[in-house]
Amino acid sequence: MNDKKNIARRKFLESIGKAAGSAAMLRTMAVMGLGLSGCGSSSAGPAAELMAVTNPISVDDSNSSKLKSPRPGDWNSRAGIGKSVVILGAGIAGMTSAYELQKLGYTVSILEATNRAGGRNITIRSGDTVTELTSTQTCLFDNNAELYFNPGPARIAHHHEFLLGYCREFGVALENFTNDNRAALLHSSYAFNGKPQVAKTILADTRGDISELLALAINQNSLDQYLTSDDKKNILNALKITGDLDNSYNYLGTSRAGYLGQETSGSRERGTAITPNKLQEYISQSGWQSALSFSHGINQQPAMLQPKGGMDKIGIAFASRISSYLTLEAVVKQIRKTANGVKIHYEKNGVLSEIVADYCICTIPTTVLKNIPNDFSVNHQQEIEQFQYSSASKLAFQSRRFWEQNYNIYGGISWTDQPMRQMWYPSNGLGSSSGIIVGAYIWSSSAANTFTDQTPQQRILSVLQQGNNLHSEYQSQASRGISVAWKNIPYQLGAYGLSSASVLLTPDENIFFAGEHLSIIKGWQEGAILSSYHAINEIVKKSST
Amino acid sequence: MNDKKNIARRKFLESIGKAAGSAAMLRTMAVMGLGLSGCGSSSAGPAAELMAVTNPISVDDSNSSKLKSPRPGDWNSRAGIGKSVVILGAGIAGMTSAYELQKLGYTVSILEATNRAGGRNITIRSGDTVTELTSTQTCLFDNNAELYFNPGPARIAHHHEFLLGYCREFGVALENFTNDNRAALLHSSYAFNGKPQVAKTILADTRGDISELLALAINQNSLDQYLTSDDKKNILNALKITGDLDNSYNYLGTSRAGYLGQETSGSRERGTAITPNKLQEYISQSGWQSALSFSHGINQQPAMLQPKGGMDKIGIAFASRISSYLTLEAVVKQIRKTANGVKIHYEKNGVLSEIVADYCICTIPTTVLKNIPNDFSVNHQQEIEQFQYSSASKLAFQSRRFWEQNYNIYGGISWTDQPMRQMWYPSNGLGSSSGIIVGAYIWSSSAANTFTDQTPQQRILSVLQQGNNLHSEYQSQASRGISVAWKNIPYQLGAYGLSSASVLLTPDENIFFAGEHLSIIKGWQEGAILSSYHAINEIVKKSST
Repeated sequence: MNDKKNIARRKFLESIGKAAGSAAMLRTMAVMGLGLSGCGSSSAGPAAELMAVTNPISVDDSNSSKLKSPRPGDWNSRAGIGKSVVILGAGIAGMTSAYELQKLGYTVSILEATNRAGGRNITIRSGDTVTELTSTQTCLFDNNAELYFNPGPARIAHHHEFLLGYCREFGVALENFTNDNRAALLHSSYAFNGKPQVAKTILADTRGDISELLALAINQNSLDQYLTSDDKKNILNALKITGDLDNSYNYLGTSRAGYLGQETSGSRERGTAITPNKLQEYISQSGWQSALSFSHGINQQPAMLQPKGGMDKIGIAFASRISSYLTLEAVVKQIRKTANGVKIHYEKNGVLSEIVADYCICTIPTTVLKNIPNDFSVNHQQEIEQFQYSSASKLAFQSRRFWEQNYNIYGGISWTDQPMRQMWYPSNGLGSSSGIIVGAYIWSSSAANTFTDQTPQQRILSVLQQGNNLHSEYQSQASRGISVAWKNIPYQLGAYGLSSASVLLTPDENIFFAGEHLSIIKGWQEGAILSSYHAINEIVKKSST
Repeated sequence: MNDKKNIARRKFLESIGKAAGSAAMLRTMAVMGLGLSGCGSSSAGPAAELMAVTNPISVDDSNSSKLKSPRPGDWNSRAGIGKSVVILGAGIAGMTSAYELQKLGYTVSILEATNRAGGRNITIRSGDTVTELTSTQTCLFDNNAELYFNPGPARIAHHHEFLLGYCREFGVALENFTNDNRAALLHSSYAFNGKPQVAKTILADTRGDISELLALAINQNSLDQYLTSDDKKNILNALKITGDLDNSYNYLGTSRAGYLGQETSGSRERGTAITPNKLQEYISQSGWQSALSFSHGINQQPAMLQPKGGMDKIGIAFASRISSYLTLEAVVKQIRKTANGVKIHYEKNGVLSEIVADYCICTIPTTVLKNIPNDFSVNHQQEIEQFQYSSASKLAFQSRRFWEQNYNIYGGISWTDQPMRQMWYPSNGLGSSSGIIVGAYIWSSSAANTFTDQTPQQRILSVLQQGNNLHSEYQSQASRGISVAWKNIPYQLGAYGLSSASVLLTPDENIFFAGEHLSIIKGWQEGAILSSYHAINEIVKKSST
């Protein structure tokens, strides 16, 4: 791999060179934790991971020392004395902003349109209601601490260190979240006659066949112009391990694939090897290959975590620390600039009020913001107007844990090419009798829009029917379905940002913008926090001039 | 992959043909969940996974329908009425036997040499003592439900369905156990100047480089005799996904490898790509390749589980259900055959007693058993005498969770070529202040024997020094070390069986043998249970003749 690697390295350096055209802004955005999705770490939920993955563009090392991602501790603890900030929206971005700004002496107020803080950080339990634009559902789960549904964020990557840091600081207990479970299923309507396959089997075969093929090429000297004999020896050894090849570098099946009948708990064929699938039987299923690589994505790799008892434990912990600054059910009606600051008009209980402040951090989703009268610059208005959101939706059922009892599936995700796309098994309450199974996590645009337009009952019937193609117990065991189509949720009108922000990364006079949609990690709570730090940093800079 | 796959398939069938030489016994053992390690699913802890993995030998399908792995429910619920069984050893195998046999009407008694039931299923907490042949240690951990150390079994594979079934039946709460954490470290004294590498980076580079090389071979038509053009198209697409290659099938780095500085929580280089390592820098580290494939082993794949609060929750739950049959501190002195049954001589509190029964299930480790006078057949005695055990040992410390706070490591395992071999980060109590870190899990024979021969204090000092090469906080933060060298633990004298059982799989008149060492899953609690079911099945058959 002498010349070849050098060629590749040259190509890599060239690609950095090309990116340098857009130099200053790209560089700034990347280190600020904000940016274009082209910066490479955008990962708006599963969708971005499943799209052809773009190669990251490196910022120039020589500059990176000057441009640092800001964070608490960077700012003068008296920076805000005598200054005020009004924050629009009490989601994670808004609450982070309030929490950190008040520490710096700013006079803080938050306006939240709904009757609770948290935004998309929400957990649904027994008796809760879900109100969409055209429907209201009541959650019929049993009243049990382990029976909950996180319709918004539902997992935390291990390197989302600011979010995890707040969990530590606030005493929010954490537990593992299993994203990748080899006992989960891969289902395609067009493969294996529609019979779901256990992920471990397809994964083992893929690794075995790919390793065998490369070993074959190396052993017939096809790559000699690129590889030294030492390289060849080392790679062959690695391939034997990776693919579980025999001493002649053949893949003849592997215990990693499981044993005959092991996909159910009823098997007695203990120790009976599985005959490997033919490469042709599975390799054309590119959705399966994407699913098998899904948990390699930087935001989806193990370890993943979740708060014990529901994701809203985080929102609740934040809210308890900023409640004195918070006004609920305050619907923003106008966002105005004044000579030296901002004026916000809002309505609460039918009464119109105004609030003036030196600065504003606006975390309102652009889907909502575009309809609020404002004094934004034309460029800001234009980007807000054009900004796209995902229509991602989720649906959950309560059920006997047949997936654990009958299939040895404890947590993780099964994948299907049907519109429901994913089935999430709970990572909590393992071994107990009932659980909440996420029957569908639909993010692809057309399927999510179709789902959004259905009535709650239509969604349930459709997902039950699809789910039954993965588990034959599904229609009989899963019940009490409840769904959230974020595009239909008032004051959200979308699941997470998809567009690449540019103008919105810069302030509009004394108005600053924040929210996951403006971050380098779109669709993640950590992104909301990073965007908040960026806004705070800009406000502190402006305050001290 | 037309001809080639067919050739491979032929080879595979031939290998089955060869195995048929040892036909009857192999077949029986495999379906009984008992057997030679050559049966392919033996996985005596990490060691077996790290050895060159043998390809599984399939039993002949035409016979497997006749030979079923036995389990509760198979046996006449009155099969044991009027019959008695004495069980030697109250570990998982012994307690499973007692629990299931009494359900069938057998009169059951268990003799246990130590002062507690559970055997190697044990959890060490504040104030507990560890008594080895030549030392006694007291556990100095803080008294806290999350501060515990499982020196024996410490994880459960998702398909260990009988063990998990007992957890469900007994109400033992379960949680995820993270075996594979991409934020954990790979350390070699001979690579990267001894600087530990983050697993995600080496894994991403391995996948990238292997994918790129195979794509190169395919694109230069080196494999055309084996692959159709459709195969080539599909494989190339899969490689692009697997390796995160660019559109020209080059691996130019990937966000999956993490970002610059992301291995610590202090980085500000948000979004800065990592330049991929050169293949030569990492590929010769075959230990790293093994570590990266470790969690593909059938018993090590996600999902993995653990009981909440310590592994001994399982042993305690078993013990509470068989306590009326149990005699503790009863040291077996002789195992004798009688005309129609067995007679066991044992000593308790200095008093010698005898117990007679129709049958005996002996779960005593062969390391101990070989020194107990007995009437076993010469063949049984010989196999007992020659049976080898692992000297595997573990050591744990209490520490501030610097691995979480400084390195974003939540659970999982770091690997090193030093004798300590593994560092396990706790999967429980995530985000809290202190945790128990398994500083060493040593299974390789020479290192484990050296460790065993050290004093507890020498072990601590040695492991602290080694651990510091992985984390520079180690020597200052990790304290209160406590170790268990199983070879030195009275009435165990070894960690788990290594030899391939043969004669011990068959009864010696009315004496039946059980224990993990006789199972197809050596070193695992599930194996102990399977071996118990086999013994029960044989006893039931004999009872009804």
